Amino acid sequence: MSSDKSKAVVLLSGGIDSTTTLAIARDEGLACYALSFDYGQRHRLELEAACGFAKSMNVADHRIVKIDLRAFGGSALTDQIDVPKGREPEEISRTIPVTYVPARNTIFLSFALSLAEKIEAEDIFFGANQLDYSGYPDCRGEYIRAFEEMANLATKAGVEGRLKVKIHTPLIQMTKAEIVRKGLELGLDFSLTWSCYDPTADGLACGLCDSCQLRLKGFREAGFDDPIAYAPKKS
Amino acid sequence: MSSDKSKAVVLLSGGIDSTTTLAIARDEGLACYALSFDYGQRHRLELEAACGFAKSMNVADHRIVKIDLRAFGGSALTDQIDVPKGREPEEISRTIPVTYVPARNTIFLSFALSLAEKIEAEDIFFGANQLDYSGYPDCRGEYIRAFEEMANLATKAGVEGRLKVKIHTPLIQMTKAEIVRKGLELGLDFSLTWSCYDPTADGLACGLCDSCQLRLKGFREAGFDDPIAYAPKKS
Repeated sequence: MSSDKSKAVVLLSGGIDSTTTLAIARDEGLACYALSFDYGQRHRLELEAACGFAKSMNVADHRIVKIDLRAFGGSALTDQIDVPKGREPEEISRTIPVTYVPARNTIFLSFALSLAEKIEAEDIFFGANQLDYSGYPDCRGEYIRAFEEMANLATKAGVEGRLKVKIHTPLIQMTKAEIVRKGLELGLDFSLTWSCYDPTADGLACGLCDSCQLRLKGFREAGFDDPIAYAPKKS
Repeated sequence: MSSDKSKAVVLLSGGIDSTTTLAIARDEGLACYALSFDYGQRHRLELEAACGFAKSMNVADHRIVKIDLRAFGGSALTDQIDVPKGREPEEISRTIPVTYVPARNTIFLSFALSLAEKIEAEDIFFGANQLDYSGYPDCRGEYIRAFEEMANLATKAGVEGRLKVKIHTPLIQMTKAEIVRKGLELGLDFSLTWSCYDPTADGLACGLCDSCQLRLKGFREAGFDDPIAYAPKKS
């Protein structure tokens, strides 16, 4: 790791969006400081994927921040609410799902901002995507720009003119198929990623939750096979 | 607790600013949902004060979110950096102290936003003050307005038009003396509050750190005695 590389904070969940985003930041020659969150999510395999993937990419650093979003509840990702199954990608894109965690991306980006100021990084990479997840308000460009504006008024380094924070969302206008193609083009090993909200007891992706459906559609439309293992379909 | 009261999320650290802010929100007839953070701060007495105070005020709810800001380091409030002692209030106001935690208020307000959306509260109360803490970028009105704008683009409830979040900072233009007078006027028991960054082993306020200096100046200028116990001055 060359020490004269510019630093970037990269939010890394372990799914195909955030891993492709990290691959893009690395491809731009940035020293990547990956940041993941242990927020009591039910799908722990995602966090394990983030760790394995970060290691495989030789990131400059990978920090996992433990926060208790579960104390707030309100989402199928942290509570014992049923994860919706078998919805069509078009339906997923139109509605805000029960897996929505209130203000989650704002919390994540705030920690990214804190780390950015700490390590003096001007670039924050975030795999937000407004096409496949149009239901999430905090994945839209309008929101990202407002966060960036706030961020540059929030920090000592910003106010002193030493640091101008930029939130990069390279995937924001891409389809899942384009994301898959971009990842493969950058040599990303998608077998190290994880998307399923509701894996089986033996660690197979369900293939039916919103996240699996969007992922499978992406691979299908890109014309590639998804390298991870899925639970056999019930007949 | 009447159930038809409007709900407010109140950030509560346990110092005189946040407790006075809570007293103001309660005085406005709001049902107060206090929110504190256990972020590895060295001055644990502040968090204990927050708990005791919230109880004494019969808040509707008090949640403590545990987050590991310490993993980021960079502040005398969480690291083993010496807390500055014996600085004049004028000097404190002019500079950003080593006790500054990167993006701390942004992280705290993000959690407040998450809770607000969860409980459907439109009002977030935050005891930011730009006179006595002009060195903190994230205590300025300009920053607060930018956060509010971002917040209303960030949430499902905001986007659906069900919730318009407002960040209230009733103390932002007040001097510490005015804050003390306001608190006393509202019947606030300041013996339940805590400000010191660096208490003695037997739990007395040091009287010398920035936070003690500003607090003592506030009481002195308001013409009242501070009811908490201070370590005897060394001759």
